[in-house]
Amino acid sequence: MSELRQDPTTFDWVIISKEKAKQPQEFSRNGKVRPPLPEHDEECPFCPGNEDRTPEAEAVYGNSDSWRMRVVPNKFAALSPDGDTKREEWKTFRKSHGYGRHEVIIETPVHNQCVALMPVEDIENIIMAYRDRYLEMKKDPNIKIIIIFKNHGRASGTSLEHAHAQIVASPIVPPYIRRRFEIATQHFDNTGRCLYCDLLFNEVEEGVRIVRETDYFVALHPFASLYPFETWIMPKMHSSSFGKIVDIEIKGLAVILKEILLKLYRGLEDPDFNMIIHTAPVDDEHKTYYLWHIQIIPRLTLAAGFELGSGIYINSAIPEETAAFMRKISL
Amino acid sequence: MSELRQDPTTFDWVIISKEKAKQPQEFSRNGKVRPPLPEHDEECPFCPGNEDRTPEAEAVYGNSDSWRMRVVPNKFAALSPDGDTKREEWKTFRKSHGYGRHEVIIETPVHNQCVALMPVEDIENIIMAYRDRYLEMKKDPNIKIIIIFKNHGRASGTSLEHAHAQIVASPIVPPYIRRRFEIATQHFDNTGRCLYCDLLFNEVEEGVRIVRETDYFVALHPFASLYPFETWIMPKMHSSSFGKIVDIEIKGLAVILKEILLKLYRGLEDPDFNMIIHTAPVDDEHKTYYLWHIQIIPRLTLAAGFELGSGIYINSAIPEETAAFMRKISL
Repeated sequence: MSELRQDPTTFDWVIISKEKAKQPQEFSRNGKVRPPLPEHDEECPFCPGNEDRTPEAEAVYGNSDSWRMRVVPNKFAALSPDGDTKREEWKTFRKSHGYGRHEVIIETPVHNQCVALMPVEDIENIIMAYRDRYLEMKKDPNIKIIIIFKNHGRASGTSLEHAHAQIVASPIVPPYIRRRFEIATQHFDNTGRCLYCDLLFNEVEEGVRIVRETDYFVALHPFASLYPFETWIMPKMHSSSFGKIVDIEIKGLAVILKEILLKLYRGLEDPDFNMIIHTAPVDDEHKTYYLWHIQIIPRLTLAAGFELGSGIYINSAIPEETAAFMRKISL
Repeated sequence: MSELRQDPTTFDWVIISKEKAKQPQEFSRNGKVRPPLPEHDEECPFCPGNEDRTPEAEAVYGNSDSWRMRVVPNKFAALSPDGDTKREEWKTFRKSHGYGRHEVIIETPVHNQCVALMPVEDIENIIMAYRDRYLEMKKDPNIKIIIIFKNHGRASGTSLEHAHAQIVASPIVPPYIRRRFEIATQHFDNTGRCLYCDLLFNEVEEGVRIVRETDYFVALHPFASLYPFETWIMPKMHSSSFGKIVDIEIKGLAVILKEILLKLYRGLEDPDFNMIIHTAPVDDEHKTYYLWHIQIIPRLTLAAGFELGSGIYINSAIPEETAAFMRKISL
């Protein structure tokens, strides 16, 4: 019989089919590996030599003739810094200009360099770049939320193989994010504690869903994971905003992020995944009700009509089993 | 420059990239058609002769030796009528047994019969079966919401080609559904009117996103569609619950549903899609604040990290253009 579990941060329910769940190893690509990529691809807009195929760089790390990372506005920007943020409203309709920012962080000059296989120092530099861009985008007083994310592989919704992250700054805090913040605020009002810190403490105490714990971070498969192998990386130092991450945490984050990505790479044979940095709305950064964290969603299954029509996900893996599987993968 | 549009029924925002949007015809499968299916597949658990490969039927339409439709419990039921609905709670964790019901409606005995190509009378019978099962499941006082949906094609999350729908009855109303009902209730408290009827009236008045209007129904591509070619079929007769649909409406629904599915079939070359019947929670059926409706989501694009991490969707099609394209497709 299946089990309904509730995510305390969203109140969403997930169905975990205990007897009929797949074994963790069944989620592996099982040899269906990607075609090998060259180190350099002349057609790739992110490869060195093709700098003119992206909009002008906002930032370049390393030397300009041998860069290590480049930050460029997204050529197909979802939001761009033109027009204003006024709403136009009539009848039941409401719209505004697509004001905002949308940048791409090209994480390496090497076309086939997978982040999971990079040296920790390079991952540290990438996270530094995320923070730099976050702080830069925050300067625009119209910006109310900044979303950093990464798509890896076609099933994650990207067509570009060259390692990159994206950062979108929006003048509108969407209900998806506002709601999480409100639930955490209510928990704080009720208990005087951060909901996410409570969740983290309880997960560490139960232990069975922990993948890795280091001095500064914990990686776990949450009790009410919506997706197989969904992984949260949560900081032990309480902070609402990723923008406030300090250097020593960045070092620690690089280590645990590499471990988690490498365990996925080895354990499931380089699955497609999305990575998202969840952080408080800019105007709420100083509030202690929230905890920034990273969510990694391997794209191993497809949402169907039930998920799209109810918001209840069916997770075909058991978080306790996938976490145990991940713990055992040696690096 | 892109446009941010808000869905008044969820307050969710969508980014519609006006200049860079694709043309409607670019979403066609363009000859990438499915491999042709046989009329009968010995391996298919839904084909006649394989009745023993499904759990015992809850209902059979037609004769038992030459059935027209069969309703069976889902062999891999997400929820099943065992145990109780009590919550178990400790620390930040909450769970309950996966109590509920999960049935499959096998919509035809013919393995390769596509609903879009069925005679209208057959579609009428299918909708009647949906209503029958809805009313049957409602009898269980533990059931609080009933979700009817259909997955067509692999990208929709199904591996079974034989035409079928599913119906899940849950003892828990998830936030996704509760929230929509609350927003509609607030609108009613403010205005004395049904939010969905207002939306429908306004869409008909603007006209540009209407695909088809008949005596009893309107099919449209909503102003703030999250997905390319997302289609809503809304009844003109106000009712919160699909369970209360009357026979004359079923006739009308069969006609417009066939037209919409056939237009998608012809215009986009049989795209994969999900279809969902949105209806009020069982205990709220008598309230007038909501309007049941059908949502069709062709699975033409993939949600990426931005969508999963913000709930803001990027729609790469313009609803006004896709609706005009759909209007022009002759049947």
